[in-house]
Amino acid sequence: MCQSHIRASVLHGAGDLRIEERTITAPGPSDLQISIRSTGLCGSDLHYYRHYRNGDILVQEPMSLGHESAGVVVAVGSDVTGFSVGDKVALEVGLPCESCDRCKEGRYNICKQMKFRSSAKAFPHAQGTLQERINHPAAWCHKLPENVSLDLGAILEPLGVAIQALKRANLTPGSTVLVFGAGAVGLLVAAMAKISGASTVVIADIDAGRVNFAVENKFAHKAFTVPLKRGASIEENLEIAKETAAAIAKVEKGTGAGELVGEVDAVFECTGVPSCVQASIYATRPGGKVLLIGMGTPIQTLPISAAALREVDILGVFRYANTYPTGVEVVSKTGPDYPDFSKLVTHRYKGLDAAVEAFEMAGKTKDDKGNLVIKVVLETEE
Amino acid sequence: MCQSHIRASVLHGAGDLRIEERTITAPGPSDLQISIRSTGLCGSDLHYYRHYRNGDILVQEPMSLGHESAGVVVAVGSDVTGFSVGDKVALEVGLPCESCDRCKEGRYNICKQMKFRSSAKAFPHAQGTLQERINHPAAWCHKLPENVSLDLGAILEPLGVAIQALKRANLTPGSTVLVFGAGAVGLLVAAMAKISGASTVVIADIDAGRVNFAVENKFAHKAFTVPLKRGASIEENLEIAKETAAAIAKVEKGTGAGELVGEVDAVFECTGVPSCVQASIYATRPGGKVLLIGMGTPIQTLPISAAALREVDILGVFRYANTYPTGVEVVSKTGPDYPDFSKLVTHRYKGLDAAVEAFEMAGKTKDDKGNLVIKVVLETEE
Amino acid sequence: MCQSHIRASVLHGAGDLRIEERTITAPGPSDLQISIRSTGLCGSDLHYYRHYRNGDILVQEPMSLGHESAGVVVAVGSDVTGFSVGDKVALEVGLPCESCDRCKEGRYNICKQMKFRSSAKAFPHAQGTLQERINHPAAWCHKLPENVSLDLGAILEPLGVAIQALKRANLTPGSTVLVFGAGAVGLLVAAMAKISGASTVVIADIDAGRVNFAVENKFAHKAFTVPLKRGASIEENLEIAKETAAAIAKVEKGTGAGELVGEVDAVFECTGVPSCVQASIYATRPGGKVLLIGMGTPIQTLPISAAALREVDILGVFRYANTYPTGVEVVSKTGPDYPDFSKLVTHRYKGLDAAVEAFEMAGKTKDDKGNLVIKVVLETEE
Amino acid sequence: MCQSHIRASVLHGAGDLRIEERTITAPGPSDLQISIRSTGLCGSDLHYYRHYRNGDILVQEPMSLGHESAGVVVAVGSDVTGFSVGDKVALEVGLPCESCDRCKEGRYNICKQMKFRSSAKAFPHAQGTLQERINHPAAWCHKLPENVSLDLGAILEPLGVAIQALKRANLTPGSTVLVFGAGAVGLLVAAMAKISGASTVVIADIDAGRVNFAVENKFAHKAFTVPLKRGASIEENLEIAKETAAAIAKVEKGTGAGELVGEVDAVFECTGVPSCVQASIYATRPGGKVLLIGMGTPIQTLPISAAALREVDILGVFRYANTYPTGVEVVSKTGPDYPDFSKLVTHRYKGLDAAVEAFEMAGKTKDDKGNLVIKVVLETEE
Repeated sequence: MCQSHIRASVLHGAGDLRIEERTITAPGPSDLQISIRSTGLCGSDLHYYRHYRNGDILVQEPMSLGHESAGVVVAVGSDVTGFSVGDKVALEVGLPCESCDRCKEGRYNICKQMKFRSSAKAFPHAQGTLQERINHPAAWCHKLPENVSLDLGAILEPLGVAIQALKRANLTPGSTVLVFGAGAVGLLVAAMAKISGASTVVIADIDAGRVNFAVENKFAHKAFTVPLKRGASIEENLEIAKETAAAIAKVEKGTGAGELVGEVDAVFECTGVPSCVQASIYATRPGGKVLLIGMGTPIQTLPISAAALREVDILGVFRYANTYPTGVEVVSKTGPDYPDFSKLVTHRYKGLDAAVEAFEMAGKTKDDKGNLVIKVVLETEE
Repeated sequence: MCQSHIRASVLHGAGDLRIEERTITAPGPSDLQISIRSTGLCGSDLHYYRHYRNGDILVQEPMSLGHESAGVVVAVGSDVTGFSVGDKVALEVGLPCESCDRCKEGRYNICKQMKFRSSAKAFPHAQGTLQERINHPAAWCHKLPENVSLDLGAILEPLGVAIQALKRANLTPGSTVLVFGAGAVGLLVAAMAKISGASTVVIADIDAGRVNFAVENKFAHKAFTVPLKRGASIEENLEIAKETAAAIAKVEKGTGAGELVGEVDAVFECTGVPSCVQASIYATRPGGKVLLIGMGTPIQTLPISAAALREVDILGVFRYANTYPTGVEVVSKTGPDYPDFSKLVTHRYKGLDAAVEAFEMAGKTKDDKGNLVIKVVLETEE
Repeated sequence: MCQSHIRASVLHGAGDLRIEERTITAPGPSDLQISIRSTGLCGSDLHYYRHYRNGDILVQEPMSLGHESAGVVVAVGSDVTGFSVGDKVALEVGLPCESCDRCKEGRYNICKQMKFRSSAKAFPHAQGTLQERINHPAAWCHKLPENVSLDLGAILEPLGVAIQALKRANLTPGSTVLVFGAGAVGLLVAAMAKISGASTVVIADIDAGRVNFAVENKFAHKAFTVPLKRGASIEENLEIAKETAAAIAKVEKGTGAGELVGEVDAVFECTGVPSCVQASIYATRPGGKVLLIGMGTPIQTLPISAAALREVDILGVFRYANTYPTGVEVVSKTGPDYPDFSKLVTHRYKGLDAAVEAFEMAGKTKDDKGNLVIKVVLETEE
Repeated sequence: MCQSHIRASVLHGAGDLRIEERTITAPGPSDLQISIRSTGLCGSDLHYYRHYRNGDILVQEPMSLGHESAGVVVAVGSDVTGFSVGDKVALEVGLPCESCDRCKEGRYNICKQMKFRSSAKAFPHAQGTLQERINHPAAWCHKLPENVSLDLGAILEPLGVAIQALKRANLTPGSTVLVFGAGAVGLLVAAMAKISGASTVVIADIDAGRVNFAVENKFAHKAFTVPLKRGASIEENLEIAKETAAAIAKVEKGTGAGELVGEVDAVFECTGVPSCVQASIYATRPGGKVLLIGMGTPIQTLPISAAALREVDILGVFRYANTYPTGVEVVSKTGPDYPDFSKLVTHRYKGLDAAVEAFEMAGKTKDDKGNLVIKVVLETEE
């Protein structure tokens, strides 16, 4: 059952992804051994795949990619209770130190000693999930109900970011919110805002197809296509950001008699693009919040007084803490008005050998037939 | 247009409701004059009608009842902007002092100088809305969109209590909540919890018809009928409360493979009945919250250690502050999964002359045909 | 260094405290071995000593008492970093499961699997600190600065309760607070409220000596001696509680020209006595908070409407989470206006053999010379 | 008593300050008439005085300056209760609309219709307090205790900013904080942080004299003099900001055995200088907060990822809401360890005719004798 040899997809350099055989021990007393069945490819995986680095973080030894994962339990450690062979589980792949102040206060996502699978930040690197099987602490595995597919189990990871953002935003019911960016994270954030009681969720992106997808599949109430404009100077760019904010304010809410969106209670910025961060500040009402979710340009020029003088707060969102139980609840549901999470997985590949092909697709915004590429999943079988 | 004589329904003693002619002045500079069109009858109105008192509060002079109201603007004060004759408005009928610490910090609902229409607490009493027209400060009037009926406008008042409760509860998305009581307020609280992102809302009442109504009309996910049991001693009653909590914990969530409700994140207690308050404490998870909404026995015997030792917090909810804008958003929406707020108004009466008949119906739980009595509305016409 | 035999004070029945020899292993990889030097005796220890039970919790096997403790590191586990032999440490003696939702969100004090030394709730019981040496996870040991005595290190445990209370109260600067009870916990709560920016801290107790002690030693600003009155009926008792609240409201703040305390922003109830809990509710301003800290009568009759209708929130405080780092900061300081924490330890006994004598003293409110008994500490030497 | 002619200091252009006679009516029903006795000069006043503008805001008609003010009541409006002729009062000079969502939720400081004395933002301008007498709504006047001087009454205005900052920071007891800038606001923020329970308050400024002043007068625990370094490029400047943060982290806390400040829980940025805002982000621990208080360069280049990826939140602070009652408590107190607020007023001028002289001094950092200029007050007499 717990045979000692597995196949793994391992990155050895930029674009150099190889299938290797690895050995795996029996799970430790508090671990589960999991047969990985579904792994979503994330932007950070793609960066590693393309550049053998992610921003300033260099890969220092061969590393398996993948951290949006779900699978099936194949062996249970001796001290583990509550799990059985055959259980479907989603993996929470970041293992914090559990003893620093942040961990003890429940904000383990910002633990400095975090070991996160498929991130090269810690050394030795925590190996990603693009392997046939892995051992993982049971405390960081989350059982999936029967009606939740393993692909949706994999989606719980980016959904965790969205839930973290909503928890940090602490919206009151009936809020009006704006989401910049209609990639997988932006769509999930919009969906979570809608589910959490925001009465108007506007999603904005430069790609009309993506924002329409969002509305059609119940991830957001209103779509806004951001016109592409570029200024030469900082002042011109800020002016364009102001115009974007003003245009969004004029979107109709779609309830009652033509009421407009106006300044919003919160903006969830999921692009990391400076002009969107700037527009986020301008688009927010006094006393509102801008949530920084997208990872983008690390140094940005911002209209900081426009935020400070109106007490518009700028809150970071980094990964997630304590979101999986909520995530399981969220993807367990369906309904005519409910976001259709299954639509997020636009492309599926079978088997570790398809990893290169999958990564190439994950790097595109549309496939050859013109369909949107949102989330590419690599499905594996025992 | 602003003629000086109006008809009013005025309470002169227990059960002694009379139609009288009153004079009305033109609206003051910052007031609107409103033709009242719809007033919902509330439990406190009913107490005054029956007993000429409400608990310790005695009526000291003839008083019009009614505070859940909406109408149409018929005259606009000279300093008012943003309103026109013909606008549909909901009235926020409590006028706080606007200068005490509570008012200045935005918690005007607990202002000690509050003058609340149809309450005898302040003297002279602030007259209720069961009159043809009233003058009311524009700052406390809320414009209704075209698609919102005046009956739903009247519902904004009890809905305000529900929104206040949800704001005070400050739930995280995906919470499991329990609502005790399926009267108008309990139903509205359940609906607001559902809309606000609670993934499981259980509503409990001794009347199976009411909890089934709640689920059928999308106000809650799960219904629980509380069995009627009475103990002789305090200990027996507490034991019954524990059993009730334990039985609710075994309700299936209805998502996935038979997961149970378990201890809930928050209980919204809308009955004021001691056994329900006791069961609320037992039903809540460590670190959860009990919201006290129902007005009931003022002195109660409670298992206070069961709350304190588990850091289950007991939070009061008294009326509402800053809820009307949210309420307007909430009742503006509809959808296949959305609570059907229009179903709350089960009985309508026409004209001030029907007030006695309306109050008699409001005092029943079912009408002669066996239909539930939830909210009785008195509709008036200019 | 890590010799295998130690002496322990072990409770075998009501009042039956025996010195026994136990064996101790070398510390595990993540543990420290600590020579216990100072243990404060707590009310729960006293209950176990007297009754072999604490409320509903029965002792089921011989158990060492003691959980307010500090000592010196004598051996360091192989995986431990940051500690050396000779370090002074305070012990956080409750070991939570670290995997439930409460633990993961940082509220480990309400973990249901908590193993707390000298509590008989879990079985086998977690043995208390009245032993020469114990092994304890390094993650739950807190290094003490040179200038902090081991007795003050032991005080960090009840101080943790006070810090927890202040964190839960979330006071704004300049608040007026009332503390009921001037035992060790009440004094520490008052001190923490004062340090945390409350501008007026009133401490109330039936013992004038204790409240005067509090003010003299800078634990509080104002003292109030609660007159002993007893009513025969619930109504009379509530009336007495109202009178107490009203009398406290008339205490002069002591700043400016005779301003009175009035209704307070928060009450910290450290007695558990029903009349004090009732008075706490009456003494609090609308929108204020009552913190339940004292463990007393588990079922109480409360004026719950007087709380709910004014949105006076009733918040439990159970032990503490993440308070030790703050506590170390707090006891490291001194100053002319600063609470003199060293005065809390009124009685010291030397050696495990003095345990019976120490417990007898801990059961008194004054010693034979008429001095207050606040905190009795048992000091041990290697 | 309420004679109709008063003298006023009125700004007619850059540097053009004239004494004029104005007429004053009797106070309206809800107003007080106040004889202004003390007005502190603020940086914004100085900008108007020097440039007849403040940033983008142009003066459009002659305007009296001054908004940090206290005086004595000389006449009481007919509807006013609680004030008598002769009362000492501090003026809260910003009058919000009291009907927008922000006002109603208690955040009136960010009301868009705010009319703030001596600010040219609204038109007609709300005239400042450099006049012999003014009428002001009693609801926005705060009575001063006998023992509080009128100069300290004037200090309540900048102290309000400090209290607002502390409320927004919502620190837990025992926090370590850093304050950038040791002008009047920075000193007041440091003092409020210390009073509010921060166990280590480091104040940093490029002027050693100012930070030493802060520690000597009990406004802060530790002083740090920021070395003047300038880089040519954005990268160099960010490097310098990092070095500043790193140097501050190495300051000894001054408690126990040499513990260092390390990353701080919160930074209160009171300079508005980009390098300080950058250093603020770097100096803060994961999960900590940066409070933007200083008004400086409106567009800044910030290491935004260093904030977002560590969930360091950036919170604006604009003026204050509901801070005066707390401020009165704060300045009513004294003590050996307590900040000596009276030392803040370093220069006093007598009479409106001395306004030019006072403004010239307010523009300096040191006077001719080398003494620090912190707060310049213009004292007037009836």
